[in-house]
Amino acid sequence: MFIVGEKINTSRKKINQAVIAKDADYILRVAGEQLEAGADMIDVNAGTLVDGEPDALRWLVQIIQEKFSVPLCIDSPNPAALLEALSVHKGRAMVNSITLEKERMNAILPVVLRFGCKVVALCMDDNGIPDTAQQRLDIARRLVSRLEAEGISREDIYLDPLVRPISTGDDFGMAVLDTLRGIREELPGVHTICGLSNVSYGLPERALLNRTFLAMCIASGLDSAILDPNDNRLMACLYSAWALAGRDKFCRKYLKAHRAGKLSSDV
Amino acid sequence: MFIVGEKINTSRKKINQAVIAKDADYILRVAGEQLEAGADMIDVNAGTLVDGEPDALRWLVQIIQEKFSVPLCIDSPNPAALLEALSVHKGRAMVNSITLEKERMNAILPVVLRFGCKVVALCMDDNGIPDTAQQRLDIARRLVSRLEAEGISREDIYLDPLVRPISTGDDFGMAVLDTLRGIREELPGVHTICGLSNVSYGLPERALLNRTFLAMCIASGLDSAILDPNDNRLMACLYSAWALAGRDKFCRKYLKAHRAGKLSSDV
Repeated sequence: MFIVGEKINTSRKKINQAVIAKDADYILRVAGEQLEAGADMIDVNAGTLVDGEPDALRWLVQIIQEKFSVPLCIDSPNPAALLEALSVHKGRAMVNSITLEKERMNAILPVVLRFGCKVVALCMDDNGIPDTAQQRLDIARRLVSRLEAEGISREDIYLDPLVRPISTGDDFGMAVLDTLRGIREELPGVHTICGLSNVSYGLPERALLNRTFLAMCIASGLDSAILDPNDNRLMACLYSAWALAGRDKFCRKYLKAHRAGKLSSDV
Repeated sequence: MFIVGEKINTSRKKINQAVIAKDADYILRVAGEQLEAGADMIDVNAGTLVDGEPDALRWLVQIIQEKFSVPLCIDSPNPAALLEALSVHKGRAMVNSITLEKERMNAILPVVLRFGCKVVALCMDDNGIPDTAQQRLDIARRLVSRLEAEGISREDIYLDPLVRPISTGDDFGMAVLDTLRGIREELPGVHTICGLSNVSYGLPERALLNRTFLAMCIASGLDSAILDPNDNRLMACLYSAWALAGRDKFCRKYLKAHRAGKLSSDV
């Protein structure tokens, strides 16, 4: 499982304060904790700062990569902010995200191509987020075909089926699961990625729903996720689902997590 | 989700003692706890008693149905024991289980037909439990076609894909998930049922694996399970997976479980 740590996001109050105050120590602590817990990549998002976003993203990339040799996921729909961040990024970044919306595609694609980035592609177009799996799958096909035509290879595309709250539609969970399975069957080699927390919006015990949904997504083929790797119960669920889906050879990672005390029922 | 409470099984030491001592109070307490926690049906298994099995099953059916108006799942491969139990059972029982093994089919089928029972049908034949989903699905098709030919309706058939430990084969979890999905697609109307605990045999933190696997099975179409309804974490996982799979209209059961304090992260 490819894990993108989601915590460095200025929509979180403490991160927002730290970015404004240029408090590198705090940011590095949050980055380090996520890497320690198993993140393969660190997402950076400074969308709330609006005009300050490009500077903030560049600063975040610089301080994090000065200390850790880890690739970052630059999380912005703003091409100017992406350019600032990518111009200082070392190694291959991921851009989060492109869509099939004309304007967004035209703005982001040149940036992705110029820096040879991996890219998160959301299953939506100018008509918004579709209701059904079939519509999402149709967008997925068109996204992959467009990105491949531009020279981006399948292994660098991370399709996000886009999770909507089940409190607003009983079928919205299943639509994501069916989309994931469809992608695995029809577009082999393409990665799938998901943010989970939308699914539980408006319901109690959100963490329970989010981690249960993660297991269900893994059963349907999900191979990457943007999540909080310091949520121990979520990670225990992830390790077990990964093993149960036959993705963890000889359950090695599961057993390693167990020996590190990460699976205990008290976490 | 159709829940069969698994706890009245003489392979559990206290149940064994209670059955031998004809301690009806203890048995009724275990039955009552399971019903209270949401079991739709109570499994009774006295297989360890060997020669005493028929008498024990009859006694269990009698005392449980004297107090609770609930149908029972008579869990035995022994036609004589099934006959004893079914001859005193009120309402429609479930028989657990038939297989495509010739001898077992010929022994159990007449009993199921005579009493008009629902039936658990295991996806195995005289060659044992198959490795792959395709082989299981092939047996599933033949089981349903045989049982339907005998006059048993689809809604009374509960196919069990048979779970094998992932510690003995990385693919054994996925084989079950693929079988469940195949049954849902190819044999609509037929129910699926599963015992979970085999999946985690030989690994640490078995309860974590079992409940994660339950969520993954529900994502793949499982609609019934034989489990311990007094395992609160397992049930919290079940309620959330059921809602996430779009099977819980307006999340009503999930919200009801929440109000009853059954979803709290401390359970």
